[in-house]
Amino acid sequence: MKEVKAIVQSHVVSKVLDALRALPRFPGVTISACEGLGRGRGEGGRFEPTVDNFHLAQHAKIEVFCSDAETETVVRAIQRAAHTGQPGDGVLMIVDLVSVVRIRSGQEQQEAV
Amino acid sequence: MKEVKAIVQSHVVSKVLDALRALPRFPGVTISACEGLGRGRGEGGRFEPTVDNFHLAQHAKIEVFCSDAETETVVRAIQRAAHTGQPGDGVLMIVDLVSVVRIRSGQEQQEAV
Amino acid sequence: MKEVKAIVQSHVVSKVLDALRALPRFPGVTISACEGLGRGRGEGGRFEPTVDNFHLAQHAKIEVFCSDAETETVVRAIQRAAHTGQPGDGVLMIVDLVSVVRIRSGQEQQEAV
Repeated sequence: MKEVKAIVQSHVVSKVLDALRALPRFPGVTISACEGLGRGRGEGGRFEPTVDNFHLAQHAKIEVFCSDAETETVVRAIQRAAHTGQPGDGVLMIVDLVSVVRIRSGQEQQEAV
Repeated sequence: MKEVKAIVQSHVVSKVLDALRALPRFPGVTISACEGLGRGRGEGGRFEPTVDNFHLAQHAKIEVFCSDAETETVVRAIQRAAHTGQPGDGVLMIVDLVSVVRIRSGQEQQEAV
Repeated sequence: MKEVKAIVQSHVVSKVLDALRALPRFPGVTISACEGLGRGRGEGGRFEPTVDNFHLAQHAKIEVFCSDAETETVVRAIQRAAHTGQPGDGVLMIVDLVSVVRIRSGQEQQEAV
C-alpha cells in the first residue's frame, strides 16, 4: 500500500476530488489546510521566500492511501487535476505504507485499502 | 521506529488519548484537524462521496511515533478507542521512520522515541 | 528523497524558515498547525499529559522534502533553529519517499526535489 501526499493550491481541491471520484475505485482521502513555501524553480530561481509571500501561499494537503497497483493512476489523476502550469502548483510525494488497518472492521493490509 | 497515523472521528480524540495514556509508556502524539472522505465500504459501496457529505465528515488526524516493538500495542489501543462500528470510523496507517531526532536533547533513533 | 517532518513550538516557525532559507538550496516546505503532546522525558517522566496541558501545547508541523544528500543538513538546520532547551521543543522524523512528482512540470524523482 502507498500513501500519496499532494500539496496543491486550495482552489483546485474540488477538481482533484472530482478526478478521484472518476477513478474505477474511489480511494480514502484526507484533506487539511497548510501553508506551502516552494523553491520557485518555476521562476528560474528568482523566487525569494519571504514572510510576506509565505503568508500568501495557502495550500491544501490531500492524502490518499491506495494499493501499490493503483498508485500510478492516483498520482496521474491528481497531477492532471491540480495542474495550472503556474509556479505554486505544488508537489506529490509517495510514501510506502507498512500496514493499513480499517478501524470499523479491523481489516488489514490489502483488505483495508 | 514507526509512525502510526490514525484518521478518526473528531469526537473520539479524547478517548484515544486516554487509551494512549493507559499504555505502559506514553508515546509522542500530534493531533490536527482534517476532513476525511472514505470509500463507504461499510455501506456496501452505495456511498456517493459528494461535496455535501464531504463537508460533513470532520475528522482528526492523530500521529504517534513509537518503537517497532510498541507499534502493535499502539495500533490496537487506537483501534479499540476509535471504534464505533459505524461507517466513518476511519483508518490507521503505519509508516516506517528512517530516523527520529529529539530537538531538545539531540537524542536519535531508539533513544529519541 | 526524504521527507523531514518536524513538530516544533509555534513561536520558532519563523526562525526555522530563516534557517532553511540560509541553506545553499531552499527546499520545499509545508507548515500546518497541530497540537502536540509529548512524553515529558525532559521532566524526568513526571509529566502527566492531561486534557488541560494538551490544550496548551500548540505546535506547528513543518514538512520539508529534500534529496538524501541534503537530509542531514536540513535536520541540523531545523534542530538548531527550533532548540530552546526546554521540554516541549519537539521532535524530528525522517521518512523515506518512494517518489516525488512536481505538479507543474511533471518532473520526477531527483529532478523534482
